[in-house]
Amino acid sequence: MLVVMSSYATEEEIAQVVMAIEQQGNVARVIQGGERTAIGILQNRGPVDPAPFLLLPGVKETIPVSKPYKLVSREFEQTDTIVTLGDVAIGGDHFVIIAGPCAVESETQALTIGRAVRSQGARLYRGGAYKPRTSPYSFQGLGEEGLKILAKVREETGLYIVTEAMDREQCDLVEEYADIIQIGARNMQNFSLLNRAGEARKPVLLKRGLSATIQEWLMAAEYIMAKGNRNVILCERGVRTFADHSRNTLDLSAIPVVKQESHLPVIADPSHACGRRDQVIPMSKASVAAGTHGLMVEVHHEPEKALSDGQQALFPTQFTQMVNEILPILTEKQRRRLLEDRNQRADGS
Amino acid sequence: MLVVMSSYATEEEIAQVVMAIEQQGNVARVIQGGERTAIGILQNRGPVDPAPFLLLPGVKETIPVSKPYKLVSREFEQTDTIVTLGDVAIGGDHFVIIAGPCAVESETQALTIGRAVRSQGARLYRGGAYKPRTSPYSFQGLGEEGLKILAKVREETGLYIVTEAMDREQCDLVEEYADIIQIGARNMQNFSLLNRAGEARKPVLLKRGLSATIQEWLMAAEYIMAKGNRNVILCERGVRTFADHSRNTLDLSAIPVVKQESHLPVIADPSHACGRRDQVIPMSKASVAAGTHGLMVEVHHEPEKALSDGQQALFPTQFTQMVNEILPILTEKQRRRLLEDRNQRADGS
Amino acid sequence: MLVVMSSYATEEEIAQVVMAIEQQGNVARVIQGGERTAIGILQNRGPVDPAPFLLLPGVKETIPVSKPYKLVSREFEQTDTIVTLGDVAIGGDHFVIIAGPCAVESETQALTIGRAVRSQGARLYRGGAYKPRTSPYSFQGLGEEGLKILAKVREETGLYIVTEAMDREQCDLVEEYADIIQIGARNMQNFSLLNRAGEARKPVLLKRGLSATIQEWLMAAEYIMAKGNRNVILCERGVRTFADHSRNTLDLSAIPVVKQESHLPVIADPSHACGRRDQVIPMSKASVAAGTHGLMVEVHHEPEKALSDGQQALFPTQFTQMVNEILPILTEKQRRRLLEDRNQRADGS
Amino acid sequence: MLVVMSSYATEEEIAQVVMAIEQQGNVARVIQGGERTAIGILQNRGPVDPAPFLLLPGVKETIPVSKPYKLVSREFEQTDTIVTLGDVAIGGDHFVIIAGPCAVESETQALTIGRAVRSQGARLYRGGAYKPRTSPYSFQGLGEEGLKILAKVREETGLYIVTEAMDREQCDLVEEYADIIQIGARNMQNFSLLNRAGEARKPVLLKRGLSATIQEWLMAAEYIMAKGNRNVILCERGVRTFADHSRNTLDLSAIPVVKQESHLPVIADPSHACGRRDQVIPMSKASVAAGTHGLMVEVHHEPEKALSDGQQALFPTQFTQMVNEILPILTEKQRRRLLEDRNQRADGS
Repeated sequence: MLVVMSSYATEEEIAQVVMAIEQQGNVARVIQGGERTAIGILQNRGPVDPAPFLLLPGVKETIPVSKPYKLVSREFEQTDTIVTLGDVAIGGDHFVIIAGPCAVESETQALTIGRAVRSQGARLYRGGAYKPRTSPYSFQGLGEEGLKILAKVREETGLYIVTEAMDREQCDLVEEYADIIQIGARNMQNFSLLNRAGEARKPVLLKRGLSATIQEWLMAAEYIMAKGNRNVILCERGVRTFADHSRNTLDLSAIPVVKQESHLPVIADPSHACGRRDQVIPMSKASVAAGTHGLMVEVHHEPEKALSDGQQALFPTQFTQMVNEILPILTEKQRRRLLEDRNQRADGS
Repeated sequence: MLVVMSSYATEEEIAQVVMAIEQQGNVARVIQGGERTAIGILQNRGPVDPAPFLLLPGVKETIPVSKPYKLVSREFEQTDTIVTLGDVAIGGDHFVIIAGPCAVESETQALTIGRAVRSQGARLYRGGAYKPRTSPYSFQGLGEEGLKILAKVREETGLYIVTEAMDREQCDLVEEYADIIQIGARNMQNFSLLNRAGEARKPVLLKRGLSATIQEWLMAAEYIMAKGNRNVILCERGVRTFADHSRNTLDLSAIPVVKQESHLPVIADPSHACGRRDQVIPMSKASVAAGTHGLMVEVHHEPEKALSDGQQALFPTQFTQMVNEILPILTEKQRRRLLEDRNQRADGS
Repeated sequence: MLVVMSSYATEEEIAQVVMAIEQQGNVARVIQGGERTAIGILQNRGPVDPAPFLLLPGVKETIPVSKPYKLVSREFEQTDTIVTLGDVAIGGDHFVIIAGPCAVESETQALTIGRAVRSQGARLYRGGAYKPRTSPYSFQGLGEEGLKILAKVREETGLYIVTEAMDREQCDLVEEYADIIQIGARNMQNFSLLNRAGEARKPVLLKRGLSATIQEWLMAAEYIMAKGNRNVILCERGVRTFADHSRNTLDLSAIPVVKQESHLPVIADPSHACGRRDQVIPMSKASVAAGTHGLMVEVHHEPEKALSDGQQALFPTQFTQMVNEILPILTEKQRRRLLEDRNQRADGS
Repeated sequence: MLVVMSSYATEEEIAQVVMAIEQQGNVARVIQGGERTAIGILQNRGPVDPAPFLLLPGVKETIPVSKPYKLVSREFEQTDTIVTLGDVAIGGDHFVIIAGPCAVESETQALTIGRAVRSQGARLYRGGAYKPRTSPYSFQGLGEEGLKILAKVREETGLYIVTEAMDREQCDLVEEYADIIQIGARNMQNFSLLNRAGEARKPVLLKRGLSATIQEWLMAAEYIMAKGNRNVILCERGVRTFADHSRNTLDLSAIPVVKQESHLPVIADPSHACGRRDQVIPMSKASVAAGTHGLMVEVHHEPEKALSDGQQALFPTQFTQMVNEILPILTEKQRRRLLEDRNQRADGS
């Protein structure tokens, strides 16, 4: 950290900052600038709290130099983390599609959609059993009944299951029934839930909060990793801005930045970002072009009857179109694999 | 709700929308505009989901007309809700000061600050026993030990206690020890926690989320009220914007708007909004002038040693200055009461 | 427009709103909702001002139903506008690359970069002669001297020239020397400049303002079209949000939305959006995947010596890489054309 | 500036950065941190461009240490700038009210409102002759005719005139007729206009841009001051955020921050920030409490007939109420002066 002194700071004030740094057991280095003096704090282990310095006379501001995250950082671990479920790999140079309805509504609905997306190459299935809803009067999900339906979808289609948990109790059940535990955007800084997810034996899909910086998002992942769970998948799902033509603004530059800063896989959810069906295909393609490790999209065979967010779900034919349109954007290896996953099913296997 | 048709919509498409509305048991009213047709949905109970209509051919968009909240709304309850704790009243034409450290660090620290703020007219004490921290490596609060210290502060000073709970388990303990359960900004849409708070026998202080609209904030309060707890206090604490000169942007127009839309009390927390001590006094005054029912401010006698957010805590002398400077802005009745609360203590009572 | 009455509104208040609508020569239609009454304003020509209605007793709010733009709208003109310069077409199913330095610095610099980008398939050249700079002490561009250099680039390379004008005087000169007049993000609502551009005989490239909604952006284009200039190209260049990992947040969903709402071509400028070289290639690819009609990117052969924004300029080899990487994302027709444009130059023609 | 090296940077890469700094004629100071090395750039005159360093191998990022503004800064000029017009002073410990309609519509309208606001203590009159409007089809102002009416308002009421200019031509006329030249939010970075305003012989009121940081706003003022005009008044008028309950979000913490960073006066315009009449009085009071040097508010005697922004204009009786309600918030000296200004008129002088 750098403590920047006011241009009026006296010699005594500078000396006081140096003393304060040394009292913490760190080393101070005084740097005489053109107009003002700054004092570097060296040999510190872990981040230094700026608060005590901001209170000393003559101090103008403090400037952090190092990043606060560690386990999630590319500097700590240079090799890409790859989360595996059977023969499915998430991260590195792999590409994966997660698809399904916003909410599990019935066995028929869940299976119909599951078969449709599996036949087009999806390998994971999304669907909420517990739904975070803005209104207490909206459909809140089927609960454990929904989790059982999800388990059945896996059994019948071979799709791996991603579903959200909103508290510790739900986490116990989701961990039992599902393959990946999702933490939603509204819970990105629900630290109790992050700690619980860090103890889970299943991978965690961590959505970016509505107004989270990349640093805050990585720090939320750091909570999970610090508890021992190294299988974290990040998911960009749009951030809140003044723009009113989409529900959120999909921040695709987050994809290359996260890949540079962290070794963790990062996927995109254009359905929640856009909130409108007609933007989902272009934004899915854009996400792939930006380098995402996977897509998470909502699909519903009867969106007009959906109990939640029907306006953003693709029709199965649109999902097929989406898969067709992303194929040319994938790498050769990713394309071959996606086509295999698709043909395998077309063959009835 | 209003379903707006595209200007190319055919008669058949319009008829189809009317049929869809009537199938839901509602009444459709076709409105021929200059360039296009809109169809009003009438006699609906509760909000109508726009999704099914957006899927019908010829539909351009849907426009909500009524607000989704009910129990929290001024239309439902015209009289101001007043939350009372002994002789302290929050809401209506009352004004109250909540003050204390960011986190409880020790009995000495907590009591020293408690006595200081009580002597200046504060009637409630804030202080975190469970701290939501961006980093897993930061001080996370003293836990139940902290709650016990808070109970002691109440005993010794007569201050009522407000403290945060981040999950159901913490909520059980906070409900036992404290007078008001705080739900923090990061948990504003932690629906499990909102449901739990709705079952609590203590009032709830609900902070506005970092990027919550007023409607979402009121809907979060609706969750609590829908479970039966009518004692909800709202707290504006700044929202996230592009601005970088303060930690958040205190959105003071939220105060008059909430007072118009809802009967619930609404207070302001300038400390978390600003994140810097030197902005807290002007923004406290501004909050009072905007009509807040109360202020929640951080005070620390040794902020340079604070384990959390020391840079935004007022020194006790600054807190005194703040109280002095808000006095002329209060109503006659509020000022008299604050002076009484202050003098009472000065008298040693 | 819809005038929504408060749920307490009396019959008299409703009648007064009806009268006010009819006095304006419009038709009022009273719609009795479940909880409250709304009054539609029908047969109006052009948008209705909500202000007078908001003042009447019993009125809760007004809701606009129709969009304020006309000439730019897809409803007004269903066929895509295609701006042509010689054999180059912008809009419809065409794709074009605009490349060059942030600022023209010298003839050698401008020509070196021009030849490099032309050899890779760019057909238009960007480069500022007048530079909008945050600081009055930064390099402000070469002025008319820069325009002369740009004309020389066109002469030597065959590239068409896009360059910015910041006021009416500069517009006169830019119109004389360049092929497309650029209006920058900071001037998107400089209405004097928009009016002047509307009188120009050259096409106008209109960048989206830093915090402009799509409606405001289209209204700015409406200013230009209303003055008679139908050759307007829109350019998404990122918007300002809380995110701090890129200079701006490239809002790619704007591309499909603009294409749906308007017949005008829309391109993307990832260089200004990202502000950092390492994000430009992924975001260029994402822009193409989202359906942009073209890319505008900054290229510099010696970015470390650039007088403006060097940190976001691609090196010529990176530009080549970018072209290679977008090729698979283009349509068959667009790819063939880009390869032709590139080979043509490789042949020395 | 500080050049931060990657933790993998080699000795050679560090040496290369040092050489690059020294080649610029500056002094490099190598600072060995715990995990990585940083290199300070010392004895530079004016800001250092980070671009060349970001390109060198091993460099992770650059961190600016000093602020880019000079003439506007409190460090450059410690004494408050006070702009005077006759016996009216803006800045320092003075407080002033600017009031009037959004747009000048007729002599009768302008004078009626002028007399009303003068009688309540306003000393300056606002009213647009040239109106920046989102739509080309909205009323654009009366132009020079409007300026003549404004001059008449001054003559008849003694109010000083503030009115907006949107380009150099308008600036010539506004400078002739008015007392203060206003630059609107949409033109805050119209650098041609800023340069012209810098040459004006009249003070300039510079509104904050819709999404301008305080640094950008001060840099815009720096443009004006750098051309020789030292009489700049800053005006906070709300910024664009996701919040939808007010037109913009009035960012009141900007007031104390600007007063700390700069010697220039800073006023607030709650009318444009809120966009709704019912928020204007509470936000006017909040602005005064935050320490603004003045208020700029819209007043209209017949807002339902206003040609522009009628929904945010106060009725004259509300303006009187506003003045009454801010009186207790002012300092003793400011209150006495405002009461004098009011009584003087009530006496018929």
